[in-house]
Amino acid sequence: MKIYIVGIGLIGGSMGMDIKTVYPEVTVYGVDSNENHLQQALALGVIDVASELEGVSDADFVIVSVPVDVALTVLPKVLDLIGENTIVFEVGSTKAPICEAVANHPRRRNFIATHPIAGTEFSGPSAAIAGLFQGKTNIICEVERTAFKLQEKALDLFKAIGMRIRYMEPKSHDKHIAYMSHLSHISSFMLGKTVLNKEKHEQDIFDMAGSGFESTVRLAKSSPAMWTPIFKQNRKQVVKTLDEYISNLTHFKDLLVSEDYDAIYEEMESVNKIKEILNGMLK
Amino acid sequence: MKIYIVGIGLIGGSMGMDIKTVYPEVTVYGVDSNENHLQQALALGVIDVASELEGVSDADFVIVSVPVDVALTVLPKVLDLIGENTIVFEVGSTKAPICEAVANHPRRRNFIATHPIAGTEFSGPSAAIAGLFQGKTNIICEVERTAFKLQEKALDLFKAIGMRIRYMEPKSHDKHIAYMSHLSHISSFMLGKTVLNKEKHEQDIFDMAGSGFESTVRLAKSSPAMWTPIFKQNRKQVVKTLDEYISNLTHFKDLLVSEDYDAIYEEMESVNKIKEILNGMLK
Repeated sequence: MKIYIVGIGLIGGSMGMDIKTVYPEVTVYGVDSNENHLQQALALGVIDVASELEGVSDADFVIVSVPVDVALTVLPKVLDLIGENTIVFEVGSTKAPICEAVANHPRRRNFIATHPIAGTEFSGPSAAIAGLFQGKTNIICEVERTAFKLQEKALDLFKAIGMRIRYMEPKSHDKHIAYMSHLSHISSFMLGKTVLNKEKHEQDIFDMAGSGFESTVRLAKSSPAMWTPIFKQNRKQVVKTLDEYISNLTHFKDLLVSEDYDAIYEEMESVNKIKEILNGMLK
Repeated sequence: MKIYIVGIGLIGGSMGMDIKTVYPEVTVYGVDSNENHLQQALALGVIDVASELEGVSDADFVIVSVPVDVALTVLPKVLDLIGENTIVFEVGSTKAPICEAVANHPRRRNFIATHPIAGTEFSGPSAAIAGLFQGKTNIICEVERTAFKLQEKALDLFKAIGMRIRYMEPKSHDKHIAYMSHLSHISSFMLGKTVLNKEKHEQDIFDMAGSGFESTVRLAKSSPAMWTPIFKQNRKQVVKTLDEYISNLTHFKDLLVSEDYDAIYEEMESVNKIKEILNGMLK
């Protein structure tokens, strides 16, 4: 089996590692515009061979794991180059723009639009983690537009690396992921900004950082090169979630200003139920 | 050695466990207004004896680990009851109101105001964790107002359970901790609220929850009974941090609305440096 990974970062690299474990006969070819990343990936054993995009013609699978703006141009190129039985999937955090970009491509039936809900705040091949996808959700969009025979093969691969599958329309995906992921990133970045601005004038404030701060600000370590195009492609939904978040924060602040502590207690108590929901969802 | 813990929750309970480990000869007495918690703490071995407040008269240490509003009334009562050589410390997340409440107490020199920066989003004796304080910071306020002989004993205990010590004025503590802890909790609670409000109309959205969402929303599981009085006592500082946070979020939203992606990239990139700061601070 011949697998190409286009973009060897955290997701592409982790896919490579897991695929090599479950399919020992596979050869993993890596393509990356960053020569350092390619050499790192080779040295780490995340890929077997450093290659070029043109090599995808006889690949069994091509995984496109590049920033979502790059995917808009790279994915059609990959589809231009592949053979009849090659399966291509892309793993970015927005799905509608990607699906639109290849909607009329002659090889559309070779493509499967996915979003594996997995990752960390780090990036690059050195951030790859074996077993990253175990027990995680893979959201597949427009599954009916992929050839059935190829769908099956892709699902086998996703299941082999431990993922559970959910089907969703691209627009629903983008709307919901704005709440469940994109908003978290902005809340974290702006929390980091608020504290850093303060810290300019107050040294030693980070001595007071505990695990709670670390947890809420963790995503502020994420890559701007990856996240700027995500926010761009999902701009309308992200603006909507931000409006709602800012409105909730302003309401909470107003309750504090007016010293309505019963209402503050109730606000927090009503959100506490997220405990049970997360316990049920995240195993 | 005789130690009283008044309020056997996450912090009090964890203190009890660690103290019993480092001072095997100690007897830990527990006092709690919640009879269930007291019985749980006994069953878990977090305390040795269920007791009453009146027993503190010949204690070596009294740890007051109750919600910060309760501390304002319980702490003076404890100081009324103790003997000449008893050391009392309180561990809440606000320091100025506590220090004011006992500023003129005849036993002020037996009291040491502390804030161990440690914990989780859970509460009650079953949330107690052995080794919770290992490598964590304990902020001590107004140290000069505690009798020197008693300071030494308290520091020995804090060091024995693995804490490093920082000294700070109560008002500085409250101002800084608003940024490093209180704001994180509100950002998390309101993130949870925003998503829960959305979820009312959109089932299955939590299927998309990944580790990033879990991390940013973790503190929204915290106890309203513990946090409402913290926000009340530190109201002015918390409102100020919320104003700054909301302003940063609004600015980010405005950049998205006006599609200024270079500025969005720079916003995130400039916050990325929190990576190095946290790496340096959190070991």
